[in-house]
Amino acid sequence: MPRYVRFLHQDQARYGREQDGLLYPLERAPWLGGGEAGPSISLAAVTLLAPCEPRTIFAVGLNYRSHLGQRPAPRDPEIFYKPVSALQHPGGPIVIPPEAEDVHFEGEMVAVIGREVRHASLDQARDAIFGLTCGNDVSDRNWQRGAGKDLQWWRAKGADTFAPLGPAVVTDLDPADRLLQTRVNGEMLQSQETSDLLFAVPEIIRWISRWVTLTPGDLIYTGTPGNTRRLVHGDVVEVELEGIGVLRNPVIAATPTP
Amino acid sequence: MPRYVRFLHQDQARYGREQDGLLYPLERAPWLGGGEAGPSISLAAVTLLAPCEPRTIFAVGLNYRSHLGQRPAPRDPEIFYKPVSALQHPGGPIVIPPEAEDVHFEGEMVAVIGREVRHASLDQARDAIFGLTCGNDVSDRNWQRGAGKDLQWWRAKGADTFAPLGPAVVTDLDPADRLLQTRVNGEMLQSQETSDLLFAVPEIIRWISRWVTLTPGDLIYTGTPGNTRRLVHGDVVEVELEGIGVLRNPVIAATPTP
Repeated sequence: MPRYVRFLHQDQARYGREQDGLLYPLERAPWLGGGEAGPSISLAAVTLLAPCEPRTIFAVGLNYRSHLGQRPAPRDPEIFYKPVSALQHPGGPIVIPPEAEDVHFEGEMVAVIGREVRHASLDQARDAIFGLTCGNDVSDRNWQRGAGKDLQWWRAKGADTFAPLGPAVVTDLDPADRLLQTRVNGEMLQSQETSDLLFAVPEIIRWISRWVTLTPGDLIYTGTPGNTRRLVHGDVVEVELEGIGVLRNPVIAATPTP
Repeated sequence: MPRYVRFLHQDQARYGREQDGLLYPLERAPWLGGGEAGPSISLAAVTLLAPCEPRTIFAVGLNYRSHLGQRPAPRDPEIFYKPVSALQHPGGPIVIPPEAEDVHFEGEMVAVIGREVRHASLDQARDAIFGLTCGNDVSDRNWQRGAGKDLQWWRAKGADTFAPLGPAVVTDLDPADRLLQTRVNGEMLQSQETSDLLFAVPEIIRWISRWVTLTPGDLIYTGTPGNTRRLVHGDVVEVELEGIGVLRNPVIAATPTP
């Protein structure tokens, strides 16, 4: 299965295809038709970046029965936005921001959009999936639904570093047949098959595209299964999606700011 | 006061400075330091575009006492995101999307960010304002808070064409001293001084920047005053901000889709 990454090499950010420990640089993002250009580079010589530069990050709430608790299953996909400023690279820290009291991990499968989609049929939506990667929909439960609840989830889901992504985008995988697992400090805390998604990826894309145009490189964080718990300074979170690899991010507390 | 626009001329989208009916093209956006380049073009020869290409569109809810109704004033700015796909050009149609039942205008002052901002002081936040323009935070009340309420406002505030913007970004104006007016088919429906904002622009920027990094060209729709009403096919909405001009958009109903 072709694997695509984004990386920093000699102060330059580039896309590349990864194979057998080598990176084959691309002229631009593969979902924009980037062809291979220039000599290969050893994977060991680069720093991996979040593998996409989306225009819009969509996310889905309440999309696994195991995560609903006492809440009813939604009738339609429940969509929200994460700002692109929240993206974090593989290995980059999840920073617990000032005044955040209850920051949780949410391990998720992320779909990468490959073509512009508007008013899509289910078949068109399926064809619009470029590939899959791992994501962490980091969330502060206090700002989301606690005593400090905001009107909308802008900082609960959108604070800087609250959207780790990567390490690679892999094509030609079935999004309805992936094992998704999340570990904190090596302890397995989430483990679910993506076949358990209440709304499968093509259905999510079809639903969004009735009102909002999706463009190549856009992301959909498809929802988290089971239970989550609070992260503290020093934790290491790993999100693993079968066939993709492991997205690993350490957790640090923000330096207090004035 | 310098006025900046974005326009389409000979199939090319460019930024420009507008003066006395002439456009002086810029190499890139003025908030990215774009200098003037090439001969001037008559304003009459171009099509105006939304004057910014933001990475993120922030918006503020409940920010005028006259708009609160029975709701209490918020303790802090209530922020949400509009997707950049919702931007609409001056003169472009506001499209009432499929299944929308109660689409309202919301005339607003929009602040354009001029520099990267993170953990800003109030002075730094003030200095980060590049200029001002007019915006319309088009909203479907049913998806926002009616019987068809979604968990978040993703389509209520984010459907395609729900973020008209323009016609020009003007610098060196006081954001706390502008008359904001909205007319539908010539009838004045909103009229308020921006000095009545519950949270002034620097305070909004300071608040956002505690958690989310703002970047040059980002937008803040600062909130709507008074009352709004339902738009129907054939309406024309005008948002006018003192010193900027008029943002005019016709309203059309979407062609029914399968």
